[in-house]
Amino acid sequence: MKKIINQPENFVDEVIDALLLAHPGWIKAATEDRRALVRADAPKLGRVGIVTGGGSGHMPGFLGYVGEGLCGGVAVGNVFSSPSSEQIFEATKAVNGGAGVLYVYGNYGGDVFNFDLASDMAELEGIDIKTVVLTDDVASAPAERSADRRGVAGMVFAFKCAGAAAERGDSLDEVARIAGKANSRSRTMGVGLSPTILPAAGKPTFTLPDGEMEIGIGIHGEPGSHRGKLETADEIADRLTGAILRDLALPKGSRVAILVNGLGATPLEELYVLYRRAAGMLADQGLAVARSYVGEYVTSLEMAGASITVMHVDDELETLLAAPARSPFFRE
Amino acid sequence: MKKIINQPENFVDEVIDALLLAHPGWIKAATEDRRALVRADAPKLGRVGIVTGGGSGHMPGFLGYVGEGLCGGVAVGNVFSSPSSEQIFEATKAVNGGAGVLYVYGNYGGDVFNFDLASDMAELEGIDIKTVVLTDDVASAPAERSADRRGVAGMVFAFKCAGAAAERGDSLDEVARIAGKANSRSRTMGVGLSPTILPAAGKPTFTLPDGEMEIGIGIHGEPGSHRGKLETADEIADRLTGAILRDLALPKGSRVAILVNGLGATPLEELYVLYRRAAGMLADQGLAVARSYVGEYVTSLEMAGASITVMHVDDELETLLAAPARSPFFRE
Repeated sequence: MKKIINQPENFVDEVIDALLLAHPGWIKAATEDRRALVRADAPKLGRVGIVTGGGSGHMPGFLGYVGEGLCGGVAVGNVFSSPSSEQIFEATKAVNGGAGVLYVYGNYGGDVFNFDLASDMAELEGIDIKTVVLTDDVASAPAERSADRRGVAGMVFAFKCAGAAAERGDSLDEVARIAGKANSRSRTMGVGLSPTILPAAGKPTFTLPDGEMEIGIGIHGEPGSHRGKLETADEIADRLTGAILRDLALPKGSRVAILVNGLGATPLEELYVLYRRAAGMLADQGLAVARSYVGEYVTSLEMAGASITVMHVDDELETLLAAPARSPFFRE
Repeated sequence: MKKIINQPENFVDEVIDALLLAHPGWIKAATEDRRALVRADAPKLGRVGIVTGGGSGHMPGFLGYVGEGLCGGVAVGNVFSSPSSEQIFEATKAVNGGAGVLYVYGNYGGDVFNFDLASDMAELEGIDIKTVVLTDDVASAPAERSADRRGVAGMVFAFKCAGAAAERGDSLDEVARIAGKANSRSRTMGVGLSPTILPAAGKPTFTLPDGEMEIGIGIHGEPGSHRGKLETADEIADRLTGAILRDLALPKGSRVAILVNGLGATPLEELYVLYRRAAGMLADQGLAVARSYVGEYVTSLEMAGASITVMHVDDELETLLAAPARSPFFRE
């Protein structure tokens, strides 16, 4: 094990401790246990609040997308575990500015269960809730069951677009429509080169022999669609981008945003090598790259690997992507 | 080997390809081989140009600190190898706006040799050159030979402060004074948990048994001051921060900036756990944390590990740290 941690059971709370200490004026705790965190300026009266949440271990995933022009609050679970419905409910109340609250989170059983419970609790208190469940991971279910797919790095586009819409004062229906549109136009494919070790378990979440890769891996190490010998960066980019484009089936001349995301241990340089080929492939297919993002956006602790996300954009989504946004982890 | 690469000999050029493609309007090539890269708006007439450079494999190190309010240009070597004097000289000419050029780079033999050669070439062309060699790595030489120390993550503070001074129109003497001041007030200590594998060699740069750590490791895997069993995050933070504070010997009430930097494979969460203890230790010593930075700023490919940098700030340095800066990898 090569982890810089203290007692594993304190891991998440120590991270929250540090975030509050390192970035004063960014977020504040909505609960005594500090597992519901909201923008320091929450609630924004008359604005839709966006609440996300999920397990820890994905930084800057979830937490990092709370801020101006992004989400209003987040419920923070243990590593790779859903937050509780109470934590989600507390975040909901804390971001509620009277215009309703949108839940945007990845499609995982525990999260769906707890967000739905929180939604019931919030509705009882008279808070309007809408929900968009993110399902961008191509490898996790076939196209005809796309609603069963998991949510992965596409969350960045959903948070950015919905957050910009909420910030400018769009209605709950509108913000929900935009989050849904961003999700339905985003596809992600990942590749894993090494497993993740959970701090509490101290053991890998799965095994992958050295020199092999898993195409379509999930951000908790969920099995993908192909395991085999590690290929070159170009071959991997072809596989990931190819699967995305087959699923999106865009007409020539379409505009896209692309995100090449590191899962934790893969150097930034290697992400750019992947980007190079993926962008070339998009151009070859007659697609125009409107915006590019390369870096660690949604991780899986120290997993080596990467994912590629492509979102089909139009004028509306491009405007929302370009709108100001600000957290310690994301700036526009 | 768990690398997402193509032919190792094309690695650096493919990364540069991708950077130019992904971030249009940020940098441009000053040479046909594109190993001298400068701000898209270079030269800035009447402004001091800052040129840095070093080996590849440290992203966002070097390259990432070219931009508005940062450096003007960079010479890009092969992985962990110095750029050539010609590449440095070409970057120098391309950023020369008539107010002189400052060289700021880490204290490594090859870099010193080539920057000195480039300096001679530039002076012959009538360009005023000053040089500040960065020496923030506490573990690399004792305090009485501090000029022999290597430069590591402290470069971020030197680039930021000198870049802000150049941007506002300070003279070459002034910008050099500020870079030197930032360097002389910065100290870094690193810890490595796993080695780096060079793409071309395909072998680890050093060996470190699983479950061990190397305190004081350099960003190319240079040996540190202590090797032993992996300790807790708090114990590691104590070791790193303790060594820094013994060397800086600051009076109570001093203000500092702190940078907790990931070397490549260490999750952001673990960097925050280190930050938590380091910031606590600074507070215990009566020091005030003026600014905090946590993330991957200067890496060593996929090395697991981290470094802590502390800079003793005053009003002048705090103003420069807070000034606007913009690259795809650093925003203020």
